[in-house]
Amino acid sequence: MKRISAIRAIEYLDDNESIGIGTGTTVEFFIEELSRIRNKFVNKKFYASSQRTMQILLNLGLDVREPDRILDVYIDGADSVDRNLNMIKGGGGALTREKILAFNSKKRIIIVDETKVRKNIFSFPMPVEIIPFSSDLIKLNLINMKLKFNLRKFNENPFVTDNGNFILDVFLENEENPFDIAHKIKLLPGVVEIGLFENLADIIIIGKENFEVEEIKKVP
Amino acid sequence: MKRISAIRAIEYLDDNESIGIGTGTTVEFFIEELSRIRNKFVNKKFYASSQRTMQILLNLGLDVREPDRILDVYIDGADSVDRNLNMIKGGGGALTREKILAFNSKKRIIIVDETKVRKNIFSFPMPVEIIPFSSDLIKLNLINMKLKFNLRKFNENPFVTDNGNFILDVFLENEENPFDIAHKIKLLPGVVEIGLFENLADIIIIGKENFEVEEIKKVP
Repeated sequence: MKRISAIRAIEYLDDNESIGIGTGTTVEFFIEELSRIRNKFVNKKFYASSQRTMQILLNLGLDVREPDRILDVYIDGADSVDRNLNMIKGGGGALTREKILAFNSKKRIIIVDETKVRKNIFSFPMPVEIIPFSSDLIKLNLINMKLKFNLRKFNENPFVTDNGNFILDVFLENEENPFDIAHKIKLLPGVVEIGLFENLADIIIIGKENFEVEEIKKVP
Repeated sequence: MKRISAIRAIEYLDDNESIGIGTGTTVEFFIEELSRIRNKFVNKKFYASSQRTMQILLNLGLDVREPDRILDVYIDGADSVDRNLNMIKGGGGALTREKILAFNSKKRIIIVDETKVRKNIFSFPMPVEIIPFSSDLIKLNLINMKLKFNLRKFNENPFVTDNGNFILDVFLENEENPFDIAHKIKLLPGVVEIGLFENLADIIIIGKENFEVEEIKKVP
């Protein structure tokens, strides 16, 4: 399912010179497909949302750069999407760089399998990247807001992002106004970014079990 | 002028067990005054907004901790204040940790000399802490907003904050709606924090040239 949506996404790359690439398993299928027709892309400029994606692209001999311009196109997966093109991202921990690249791209293409399409995107916990110094205080703020959350761990220690920060996964599924709460969390001092992506997808490509592909496009 | 406001601020510390301390020259006068009556404070808990302040407090043999609770009181300076208790902070580069501590304190006391009191707080450029990865893109965003700014430097290289980030100083003095623009900047992906502090001062103590002290207090 992930592969067929990845194959479809390749078709959107023509005529784009600067290409941003996200992070995660679906994106890695996409890069695998890209590598089969590598010659078409050796003269294009690539921008990676994580150290991991950068390494994979460099291994293919592609031209990977630090973000220095508005990108023509950005390709990424998502942990949870709805039919209004809202998303939750950051299950892999790269939400801040993903949002930086998505926000600064002319066209955003999201590739998912159909299990990621949900009525309530918040049935996936929302990742929140936080400055380590503020960790205990943000937990207190969330407790005062009566919210449940987990500090993300890696081998018993806090998971550390490419920006040197921590991640809290916040459970908003059963809240009445999860978007409002998410916006409040974004403004807490010490919060670097939240995993709610609003208005940051132009096309969502959904791979389905029967090998069909559905596309949801933003109404211009 | 700084010293007389610092002396007045000491009077507000009685009965407070957890004390946050900001960063900057005025704060260092304050710590000097504190050190004269050090014995009153050896059993209190201190929280520092910067590595520099932490080191000064540790050198005095005080009990300095990582932020783990809502603080009783927070003491800091400011680069620019108005009579509505708005402030611009971060001239010293510690704005994010300062905002984290100020936001999470029950009482916020700001000490300044009268040169810091302005009609338009934005006559001091607003510091913006940004993730280095997003540096060029945020500059492009600000240029699109027709704003002027400088990347803060230290010995020819970008100045690096205690959180490992960069600082852009943004000039908003001549804008019609600087508060609205500041709020927009805060939401740009890659921005960690802005130096506009709204509703984060309870008392501003102003030291004047004639040795008088004026206090502006929040109306409850």
